[in-house]
Amino acid sequence: MTNSSHTVNFSTPRGFSTTFKSDCKETFFPDDPFRKFKDGKPLVRAKKAIQYFIPLFEWLPKYNLSLLRYDLLAGITITSLAIPQGISYAKLGDLPPIIGLYSSFIPPFVYAIFGSSKHLAVGTVAACSLLISETIGAKVSPKDDPTLYLHLVYTATFFTGIFQTALGSLRLGILVDFLSHSTITGFMGGTAIIICLQQLKGIFGLKHFTTHTDVVSVLHAIFSNRKEWRWQSAVVGIIFLCFLQFTRYLRQRKPKLFWVSAMAPMVVVVVGCLFAFFAHAEKHGIQIVGDLKKGLNPPSIQYLNFDRRYLPVTVQAGLVTGLIAMAEGIAIGRSFAIMKNEQTDGNKEMIAFGFMNIIGSFTSCYLTTGPFSKTAVNFNAGCRTAMSNVVMGFCMMLTLLFLAPLFSYTPLVALSAIIMSAMFGLINYEEMIHLFKVDKYDFCICMAAFLGVSFISMDVGLMLSVGLALLRALLYVARPASCKLGKIPNSYLYRDTEQYPGSTTMQGILVLQLGSPIYFANCSYIRERILRYIQEEQGLSDSKSDVIEHLLLDLSGVSSIDMTGIETFTELRRILEGKHIKLAIINPRIEVLEKMTLAKFVDAIGKESFFLSIEDAIQSRQFSLGSTVKETGGSSNNEDAA
Amino acid sequence: MTNSSHTVNFSTPRGFSTTFKSDCKETFFPDDPFRKFKDGKPLVRAKKAIQYFIPLFEWLPKYNLSLLRYDLLAGITITSLAIPQGISYAKLGDLPPIIGLYSSFIPPFVYAIFGSSKHLAVGTVAACSLLISETIGAKVSPKDDPTLYLHLVYTATFFTGIFQTALGSLRLGILVDFLSHSTITGFMGGTAIIICLQQLKGIFGLKHFTTHTDVVSVLHAIFSNRKEWRWQSAVVGIIFLCFLQFTRYLRQRKPKLFWVSAMAPMVVVVVGCLFAFFAHAEKHGIQIVGDLKKGLNPPSIQYLNFDRRYLPVTVQAGLVTGLIAMAEGIAIGRSFAIMKNEQTDGNKEMIAFGFMNIIGSFTSCYLTTGPFSKTAVNFNAGCRTAMSNVVMGFCMMLTLLFLAPLFSYTPLVALSAIIMSAMFGLINYEEMIHLFKVDKYDFCICMAAFLGVSFISMDVGLMLSVGLALLRALLYVARPASCKLGKIPNSYLYRDTEQYPGSTTMQGILVLQLGSPIYFANCSYIRERILRYIQEEQGLSDSKSDVIEHLLLDLSGVSSIDMTGIETFTELRRILEGKHIKLAIINPRIEVLEKMTLAKFVDAIGKESFFLSIEDAIQSRQFSLGSTVKETGGSSNNEDAA
Repeated sequence: MTNSSHTVNFSTPRGFSTTFKSDCKETFFPDDPFRKFKDGKPLVRAKKAIQYFIPLFEWLPKYNLSLLRYDLLAGITITSLAIPQGISYAKLGDLPPIIGLYSSFIPPFVYAIFGSSKHLAVGTVAACSLLISETIGAKVSPKDDPTLYLHLVYTATFFTGIFQTALGSLRLGILVDFLSHSTITGFMGGTAIIICLQQLKGIFGLKHFTTHTDVVSVLHAIFSNRKEWRWQSAVVGIIFLCFLQFTRYLRQRKPKLFWVSAMAPMVVVVVGCLFAFFAHAEKHGIQIVGDLKKGLNPPSIQYLNFDRRYLPVTVQAGLVTGLIAMAEGIAIGRSFAIMKNEQTDGNKEMIAFGFMNIIGSFTSCYLTTGPFSKTAVNFNAGCRTAMSNVVMGFCMMLTLLFLAPLFSYTPLVALSAIIMSAMFGLINYEEMIHLFKVDKYDFCICMAAFLGVSFISMDVGLMLSVGLALLRALLYVARPASCKLGKIPNSYLYRDTEQYPGSTTMQGILVLQLGSPIYFANCSYIRERILRYIQEEQGLSDSKSDVIEHLLLDLSGVSSIDMTGIETFTELRRILEGKHIKLAIINPRIEVLEKMTLAKFVDAIGKESFFLSIEDAIQSRQFSLGSTVKETGGSSNNEDAA
Repeated sequence: MTNSSHTVNFSTPRGFSTTFKSDCKETFFPDDPFRKFKDGKPLVRAKKAIQYFIPLFEWLPKYNLSLLRYDLLAGITITSLAIPQGISYAKLGDLPPIIGLYSSFIPPFVYAIFGSSKHLAVGTVAACSLLISETIGAKVSPKDDPTLYLHLVYTATFFTGIFQTALGSLRLGILVDFLSHSTITGFMGGTAIIICLQQLKGIFGLKHFTTHTDVVSVLHAIFSNRKEWRWQSAVVGIIFLCFLQFTRYLRQRKPKLFWVSAMAPMVVVVVGCLFAFFAHAEKHGIQIVGDLKKGLNPPSIQYLNFDRRYLPVTVQAGLVTGLIAMAEGIAIGRSFAIMKNEQTDGNKEMIAFGFMNIIGSFTSCYLTTGPFSKTAVNFNAGCRTAMSNVVMGFCMMLTLLFLAPLFSYTPLVALSAIIMSAMFGLINYEEMIHLFKVDKYDFCICMAAFLGVSFISMDVGLMLSVGLALLRALLYVARPASCKLGKIPNSYLYRDTEQYPGSTTMQGILVLQLGSPIYFANCSYIRERILRYIQEEQGLSDSKSDVIEHLLLDLSGVSSIDMTGIETFTELRRILEGKHIKLAIINPRIEVLEKMTLAKFVDAIGKESFFLSIEDAIQSRQFSLGSTVKETGGSSNNEDAA
């Protein structure tokens, strides 16, 4: 009955170097990035390689005036967002506001050279700005020693750059994979909440405030300083906020009017400046930014501080913000690329971000990445290539050279309104509800980040959430799902009996499907689970009528196995022999069969116990069954049809 | 063509409470321990429940004289091993030798009541003794303040007991699963090496020695103290060692003579005592144990020390040794149970060990578990039930009451020889070679433990190895294997084209098999990999002849999915639409289909895109293929046979 073409392929296992090479490739080069320049003439290959490593050379030669038209418009639009956001987020990071403007000048040029995304707009981000001030501010107070604080921020940015470049070069984009969608949703939401609360300082015009970021401390700081509240400031703030929210609403209703909401922060800043200048707002309790000097970025490479006392805190700030910035930048670049059916290479993006931050730390910039709001505006404004970043860079240069002092009249309350309005969009409560409906554990991961960030601190929230997610990953690994298979009537298909109640089983034969890799973390579970299936099948009564004579294990879904796993099979076989049950292995995959051959398990149970399909195994085993064989449904001879 | 019985079952998803309950059960009660007393009359159930929780009640009523005969012999044999080992390992842990004898008196009785293994013999273990002295000795010197040191050891034992009981009660046996076979092999080997080296102190009769345990420090200590070397001691030691190794060799050649090697340590001790007594060995540079008082264990509950200064070190020692002792005890109990076709319950064993150590810490005992050597001797001596432990307990009681002072003449060199001889058996180099041949990564995990323990310290070695093993687990999760399927000629089977080179694929249709759960950690990899398959298939030439029109994803092996995974499928579908490729899902399992339904993915791609088998999907999709369809082999109508 068994056909020679249906037997398991017992060819000699591949050598170690072959499997090792293929494993490394799958781990670090899943997208096979070098395929483009593997073949061809040396000159063509070299050209393609340069184009691969420096994407600028890929798009610049094809660049033309009609593309420039689009990029020019997009570039100007994002500049109008970059100026207020730059100043705002620098304030959030307890940095001089001019640093925010500097950070929008040099990094966009760097990204235009090395970045592979066409839609990403470079800029600073709120969450990382706050995280920097939280981490470094815990060691050096930005008020008491602003110069040292600033130098440490440059140093942290430098470490971020080194870290991102290293991860990208080592193809460790895999690390970003461990920040799940749920973690990011929760983290963003929590960050948005605490940033909004922090802005109440600006809205109420407070002068004293807490350095803690958690909800309880911030609310306490706001209410305990009631006497400092300034109604003038609050009125102006609420008017600005209403205006900004209205333009957002407008964009949602009429997507073509996106430029209104993109320009709105700039309008708020300009109106705020004019108001502050003409109404002498400072005298009425409305604080202004103050002191913005003309001129381009001064070099800051000489300020990098590797003092052993501050090294732990700068390295920590650099790594954590680097990881978060990277996750945000890569996720955003990817999601816009998908809309346009293009692919981005996460590892290459990391290298581009890394270069951006290293060069940034040498030129008085702090951490930059691809923030969501700016990228969305860039995309909607119709950008075609990374040239829109270059345009933004030029506009920022002109601003720094000629217009910077004008912005010194910007009221802090205007900046607070801009930040709050941007943050409202990040609290994705719809997604949280969706998570709750679909996957409760994902919801817990999301809430761990959300509540952890809101009530404890940003690092703790993030770590809690990632820890929970890893725990889940390990639980998946430790408790792989298995199921009992039955035959779907009138077919050759064997499916989960729980999922397909119509499927029929055969007396004396138990068919189990195992999923996921079998190895040390789950193999004692798998053994227990298999024995429990047998016990359940045989019933507690130990009546002889339900006795099982054959156990068929379908390993189609088992992608790999380790030594402990193979030993478990050996043990299992010994236990089954004691119970007079014969074991058969169905369709082992190549990695599994290789290990089983090397470990002599194949020799131990015999090649005749390996089958390519459940049907084959049942056909072969039926002959050896006792007299109790009764098939309850289906036909068993459809194999002959072929 | 599609038959109604062959469609995917789209019934409404199960409720959250149902799936949550089933997940919890799989995670914590994989062996369904309560099944035995779920049904039946209340009285019968209560009786069975008591028997379950206190196994003594299960075997004692059936106990009879013929069983006692076997257990008596086994009990006496293990006592003859327990006395020398107890004294030796207590010395290894820098404890008074009498503590080692105390530890073989009370714990065996506790185990006999609560333990479920029939073969396990209770006793102290070398690795944990050394680990205790390493951890607690780092805080309090056993030489300068022996009383405080001893009290801290009791406290650590107490914490071990609490920890083990808690883990067992919370059904967290899963933790032990993360100590892989390779880790344990390497850890045992490394520990054996450093313990052997430590014994050179005794063999050479040194008085000054290092407190470090790594190979370099120990060798340095031995050679820098060359002047203290005593040839008399070395000669005696080598003679004893040769005798012990010879009895071991004898046992290997003639397994029936196991009692010779089991009695050998006792013989060495007795001969040593006589020699020391009559030859006045002390005067010739051979140190003796000295001072062993008559009498049973004094209570020690009043000595438990919860001082905040020492709490971190006692808790650390308690947890680490507890975990290792548990892993050893459970693994050993399990492997002997398998030989006899019995099953042990890891979680119940933990509770028994926990009680043993809690009560032990109240009665002047230190950490005990089921050591390998003693259990093997017990098994070979023909023990039938846990009564052999009771016999050993009684023998120890008699020893403590009457014979203890006799052993005070035991030369230290005899103890060193006993320990070294026991340790040689733990360096399992054959297993290491086997690991190297079968699985290089498992070999690395083993070597990390082996070299880490030998050259750094026991904790670091263990953590390194477990860390590597977890990294591998996470890599399995992050990079699940996938493969391209082809049809095996003359069958309805679709198998990996790499494994079965004879299988044929169909132009225009790409069939991929995904394995393992799909979720945040691997979904961007899966997307990249699928897109790469498509690119490889279509070739770099972009010629139209290889164009793919349908992508079939076989999800049989995908046991679960999370939100990020479902979003990846949504993204993938959007990318494929851009490439004019249609997506079909084959045989989603119940958990996956439920999530897909809840997340509205099923509605998005339509129920007509779900198929129960690859054959069904291909049949249905063939009609919609372009004119380029050419099947290269096999028949496609065997579905009609049913």
